[in-house]
Amino acid sequence: MRFDHETLGQRVRFASGQARESLAAEIDLLGASRVMVIAGQDERELADAVTADLPVVVHHDEVVMHVPADVADRAREVAAQHRVDLLVSVGGGSTTGLAKAVALTSGVPIVAVPTTYAGSEATNVWGMTESSKKTTGVDDRVLPRTVVYDASLMLSLPTGMSIASGLNALAHCVDSMWAPRADPINAALAGEGIRALNRGLPAILDDPRGLDGRERALYGAYLSAVAFASAGSGLHHKICHVLGGMFDLPHAQTHAVVLPHVLAFNVPTAPGAGERLATAFGSDTAVAGLAALRERVDAPKALRDYGMQESGIEPAARAVVEAAPADNPTPVTVDNITALLHAAWEGAEPR
Amino acid sequence: MRFDHETLGQRVRFASGQARESLAAEIDLLGASRVMVIAGQDERELADAVTADLPVVVHHDEVVMHVPADVADRAREVAAQHRVDLLVSVGGGSTTGLAKAVALTSGVPIVAVPTTYAGSEATNVWGMTESSKKTTGVDDRVLPRTVVYDASLMLSLPTGMSIASGLNALAHCVDSMWAPRADPINAALAGEGIRALNRGLPAILDDPRGLDGRERALYGAYLSAVAFASAGSGLHHKICHVLGGMFDLPHAQTHAVVLPHVLAFNVPTAPGAGERLATAFGSDTAVAGLAALRERVDAPKALRDYGMQESGIEPAARAVVEAAPADNPTPVTVDNITALLHAAWEGAEPR
Repeated sequence: MRFDHETLGQRVRFASGQARESLAAEIDLLGASRVMVIAGQDERELADAVTADLPVVVHHDEVVMHVPADVADRAREVAAQHRVDLLVSVGGGSTTGLAKAVALTSGVPIVAVPTTYAGSEATNVWGMTESSKKTTGVDDRVLPRTVVYDASLMLSLPTGMSIASGLNALAHCVDSMWAPRADPINAALAGEGIRALNRGLPAILDDPRGLDGRERALYGAYLSAVAFASAGSGLHHKICHVLGGMFDLPHAQTHAVVLPHVLAFNVPTAPGAGERLATAFGSDTAVAGLAALRERVDAPKALRDYGMQESGIEPAARAVVEAAPADNPTPVTVDNITALLHAAWEGAEPR
Repeated sequence: MRFDHETLGQRVRFASGQARESLAAEIDLLGASRVMVIAGQDERELADAVTADLPVVVHHDEVVMHVPADVADRAREVAAQHRVDLLVSVGGGSTTGLAKAVALTSGVPIVAVPTTYAGSEATNVWGMTESSKKTTGVDDRVLPRTVVYDASLMLSLPTGMSIASGLNALAHCVDSMWAPRADPINAALAGEGIRALNRGLPAILDDPRGLDGRERALYGAYLSAVAFASAGSGLHHKICHVLGGMFDLPHAQTHAVVLPHVLAFNVPTAPGAGERLATAFGSDTAVAGLAALRERVDAPKALRDYGMQESGIEPAARAVVEAAPADNPTPVTVDNITALLHAAWEGAEPR
């Protein structure tokens, strides 16, 4: 047993239907008096409702995907002009990302209220784009001081998108088991995340307006972000990154299709991970556990259904072998990755 | 699902036989240049060995149990005189506790190198005594920035003491399931701690000079401290605190005897906790899992073996009912606590 593990200090307030009350309590605790609310136009009404009790000095609604640098600069100017002492972000990954851009240069703390399962709120990673080039970095100043989770805010997320997003979070958890900075603490948190998602996603399908499934999925997505941020990108994420970049495939669906193939690829050489995953799924084996969940939620099965051509397999396999983590449990070769991608492309049983 | 959870930010470097290298790497990362080493006289040689590569400006070896206030004051003066910028503590709970006392007033960060399973290194709780009155408090300044775990430092801890201390850590984990601030994150970390201790303690018995058991127990003890610090004291700890105060019973043995009785008392009304505990023990039920481990390590069974009189049960039961957490899963009464204490006193089967 040998590892370095960095636990990020953060408070989580988890209470459905209580975002407004949680925020008010949090602002009291932090002693903030000049709040900047960051929320896109689509979330404006929601943001107004949950921040109604706060000492808000400015609302900012210019939220753009991937945080363009000029958008970040304007938000920073607004924060400085109004001498804000707290950023409250209400929205998905782009909204949290904009708050992080402001925090990065100003040091003003963030309280994040997520409305999707993106998970950015639980990491110290920031990202920005300039002339369509993406820059990312790690800085503890961008880690939100507190996350206010309210599963009732997820009720408007369509079922299909909830399942896809939940399977994406599941992929974070599974890949944490063998990613470059994998360690037992990450594995334990990822196992708990799988346990929550494995119960939550079927519950969302069964009762899309019910809170039970949304709460479990939200809790699981939070843990998936914590584990993934600490463990880093494993083979699964490297494969999806290559496929996404080469063939412009849809993000969540790509993850959903590829995951069982990576699991079957790594479990034979990672028995400890296999045991943890089986326990988390409450199944005899990890592979069977994931298969049962995928069946239950009718997960996407084949990359060719999303427009990938068979001829793409060979160049993708070469790129994956280049990008794969050196210490992946099963050593990667062009041959075995080609076989894996072919199975994922045609929707064959994972081997 | 409703909870507030505070995750404490801390780095853990876990590598057996590598305390010296881990410390050197950590001091580089923190950029410290004036280190104060805090270690009792018994640990002086060990402390010299593991801190050999550090820019040490002063050694301090006046370490006293329960951190008397005058001892803390002298350590603070030494730290100030030498303008230290980092405290490195090498030792058990009293040593870490003294470093915390210095950090509390000076803000100087701590890197802790534990040599027991005490767990203080993973909490933001400090304690001090003055005129035999103990004061405790919570302050993030006393949380060690980094913990350097080296299981080879535990090899000198006698087997019996290792088992007793490990069972104490196990009690922290179990009690976290229903303590006042119990939440699913604490429960997941406690479950992982139980998993590690359940494998580690028998391995220590089987091979006291081997690292495998020591590593698992150390890892489990760390998680138990994290979970316990966050969840607070549940019924088990309230009972042990009452018994320890009234009858001066030995700490670790009291915990070992009482735990199965509290488990049997609470599991019927806390099915979620029971399921988690059973999974962690790898057993059909929580009660059977704990019983099997206790049998395997020949855990202490009866309070009367440690000098408690039967006549003490009644006053103890009244004090426990006063002290018990209001939201304990099974409501406490003088009658049911009397029955519990009687069973623990005579060493009967937990019911």
